[in-house]
Amino acid sequence: MKKMKIYRDSLAEMKKVVANLTEQTTDLEVERRVAEIIDAVKVRKDEALKEYEKKFDNLDIENFEISSAEINEAFRNLDPKIKEALFLAKKNIVSYHEFEKEQGFIDTKTPGIIRGQKVTPLEKVGIYVPGGTAAYPSTILMTALPAKIAGVDQVIMVTPPQKGGVNQAVLAAAKIAGVDAIYQVGGAQAIAALAYGTESIPAVNKIVGPGNIYVATAKKQVFGKVAIDMVAGPSEIGILADKNANAKELAADLLSQAEHDVRARAILITDDEQIAQKVSDEVTKQLEDLPRKSIATQSINERGFIAIMKSIPEMFELMNVVAPEHLEVQLEDAMKYLSLIRNAGSVFLGRYASEPLGDYVAGPNHVLPTGGTAKFSSPLGVYDFIKKTSFINFSKEALNNDMNAITSLAREEGLEAHARAIEVRFNN
Amino acid sequence: MKKMKIYRDSLAEMKKVVANLTEQTTDLEVERRVAEIIDAVKVRKDEALKEYEKKFDNLDIENFEISSAEINEAFRNLDPKIKEALFLAKKNIVSYHEFEKEQGFIDTKTPGIIRGQKVTPLEKVGIYVPGGTAAYPSTILMTALPAKIAGVDQVIMVTPPQKGGVNQAVLAAAKIAGVDAIYQVGGAQAIAALAYGTESIPAVNKIVGPGNIYVATAKKQVFGKVAIDMVAGPSEIGILADKNANAKELAADLLSQAEHDVRARAILITDDEQIAQKVSDEVTKQLEDLPRKSIATQSINERGFIAIMKSIPEMFELMNVVAPEHLEVQLEDAMKYLSLIRNAGSVFLGRYASEPLGDYVAGPNHVLPTGGTAKFSSPLGVYDFIKKTSFINFSKEALNNDMNAITSLAREEGLEAHARAIEVRFNN
Repeated sequence: MKKMKIYRDSLAEMKKVVANLTEQTTDLEVERRVAEIIDAVKVRKDEALKEYEKKFDNLDIENFEISSAEINEAFRNLDPKIKEALFLAKKNIVSYHEFEKEQGFIDTKTPGIIRGQKVTPLEKVGIYVPGGTAAYPSTILMTALPAKIAGVDQVIMVTPPQKGGVNQAVLAAAKIAGVDAIYQVGGAQAIAALAYGTESIPAVNKIVGPGNIYVATAKKQVFGKVAIDMVAGPSEIGILADKNANAKELAADLLSQAEHDVRARAILITDDEQIAQKVSDEVTKQLEDLPRKSIATQSINERGFIAIMKSIPEMFELMNVVAPEHLEVQLEDAMKYLSLIRNAGSVFLGRYASEPLGDYVAGPNHVLPTGGTAKFSSPLGVYDFIKKTSFINFSKEALNNDMNAITSLAREEGLEAHARAIEVRFNN
Repeated sequence: MKKMKIYRDSLAEMKKVVANLTEQTTDLEVERRVAEIIDAVKVRKDEALKEYEKKFDNLDIENFEISSAEINEAFRNLDPKIKEALFLAKKNIVSYHEFEKEQGFIDTKTPGIIRGQKVTPLEKVGIYVPGGTAAYPSTILMTALPAKIAGVDQVIMVTPPQKGGVNQAVLAAAKIAGVDAIYQVGGAQAIAALAYGTESIPAVNKIVGPGNIYVATAKKQVFGKVAIDMVAGPSEIGILADKNANAKELAADLLSQAEHDVRARAILITDDEQIAQKVSDEVTKQLEDLPRKSIATQSINERGFIAIMKSIPEMFELMNVVAPEHLEVQLEDAMKYLSLIRNAGSVFLGRYASEPLGDYVAGPNHVLPTGGTAKFSSPLGVYDFIKKTSFINFSKEALNNDMNAITSLAREEGLEAHARAIEVRFNN
């Protein structure tokens, strides 16, 4: 195999390299097929869902809903070690996400005027859980628990049907997370069902969770009819390390993301030539006996790289342009660099904050902005499952005080009926 | 003209009527033309912008940026009455939106574990301001001020060029709001420029503000590359009123939204036959001498209606299905109904909280979710211009405590490299 690519260019040059990383591609053929699926489900509902499950998965689905007997059975049969780990994860996810709850506010400082904001949970939320090897029980906790903490009435899960039945750990995790109903339906058709509702599956207000290109495209197409979380791309890790870091640990952390997907991206930025070389060697060595070697090798070869910068501030500046999903700061006294971090989904500070810790049990969400979208997006959180409503109450006198300003602006904007709606209250 | 339609159906029947109101239509031809414009601007940048401005507006634009001399001139020449009104609006918008600022958090309860969330403003934001009669100075304050309060470094405005130069009140309002740069470019090409950047116009992280179908479609297409606010539809008002309300005032408030757009929607829900009749008569009467009579008449005829329900709780239940952009509660002791409101963008409580008060000077944002999206979206706010980053710091002992849970879950999910990244820290 090839060695991990090492760049020794200037910061300015490297910024250009990074700017060209986040290409977005739209596949018009996928767009067209997804639009067709959505239209079919909108009109023919369950009948269309059944046809697509037959066509794509060669499965005849009679009942989309998975019975509570089956879910309870999966929970009972779950390996006690996994059960314990999921309950630990739940405890920490809940205690972290409780901090994200919002309260609204009320402002009563001005006599005669009340202004405020009310926070209301969404009524129904849909969670997409991929099938096959990408069916991660941990992701069910990460998506369903924040919705539950927000106070969502109904958290609905959809997941592709499988020949031998849906992954048992997935069903058990859904029970632990408090998911209200599970439907076995996948792909763009599942997204369409959640957006428009069918005889079996209720329409929701928001759809979250990862999925393949069909799922991602469908989410983008139903955006506006319902809310969606960001359309997630392949996983990424960016590591900042100096000469004191441990090359074996850095290599292991890079590979923990590379094993996800051939399009995953693992990046090391350092100020030290030796650590760059050592990590590159270690990556090659550790790749040898990884079960997912071929995936990780392709990711490292095609998308991974190491960049050597002149100083720690330059390292942070470049990493802020990358805006990685996961950022590890493997520098001494790591906490002190928090103020230099502008763009990242989740930050892992210090030697023992290895990225997989955040994937499972630390508590912060592992559904994170990818592909540079950390420049404008947040981790999935309780705030994704609430919405705000402003309110005002004015006395007659308070409205009278503002009348001239309102009517002047309304008439300036050519909106006479706006002005009259205020005036009618005083000459009525 | 026709009278405003009055429904006397049951709640269940009315819910069906309302569910069919919010049809979404996609215009494939518009989609295709917008995609073409975006591709052209992405590749040929300023050159493409100039061609489109020539083609669509028949204007030759040399410099896209409007000079500070021109902006200052517009500010100096602004009608003092309008200037005073805009400064009053600014003061109240700022004092309301200050409540929306977020602080992040840090959790240090468990020895050896630090978990937190850091709030960072977006770096660059673009605001779209429509041209012609829809160029509202008030909207500039409502979009730019929350971005400024969030701490955005650069707030950039784009607005279509006009034969006689850009609307002077718009330029003055941009100065009052603290907009950092104004570019005269409109339509889908302006959105493309903000998303991808050109020689003249910097790329931004988020695009907000209202626009026509081309602007809305372009925003949807660049979503993912940048963040966008909700794609806004025509304006709406829903009023809840009983027999004690004043029919003249209700009619005036309905018309204040109807005058915006032939597709605007004005709805009254009441429990009283007489007030329904009186409002319907008043609407007809007040329409007579409105400057925007033809727009408002078409809106009222085609999209407005009155629904008579059996009780106040039924009125709220139906209105929550409508989920209106603006909701007026014209009931006695209006504040006490706050808990019955689930879905609305902005709520106006009591006789003197007339909707246009909220459009201009009350302080809450007037960029609000339309078309039923108040079920899952919030008013534009400071929270739209920040993003969150989670962070963790673990001691060796704390990581050791969680090691078994992490490695069990990683191996259950088939992610061996995840497990090894943790273990390497203890057998290294």
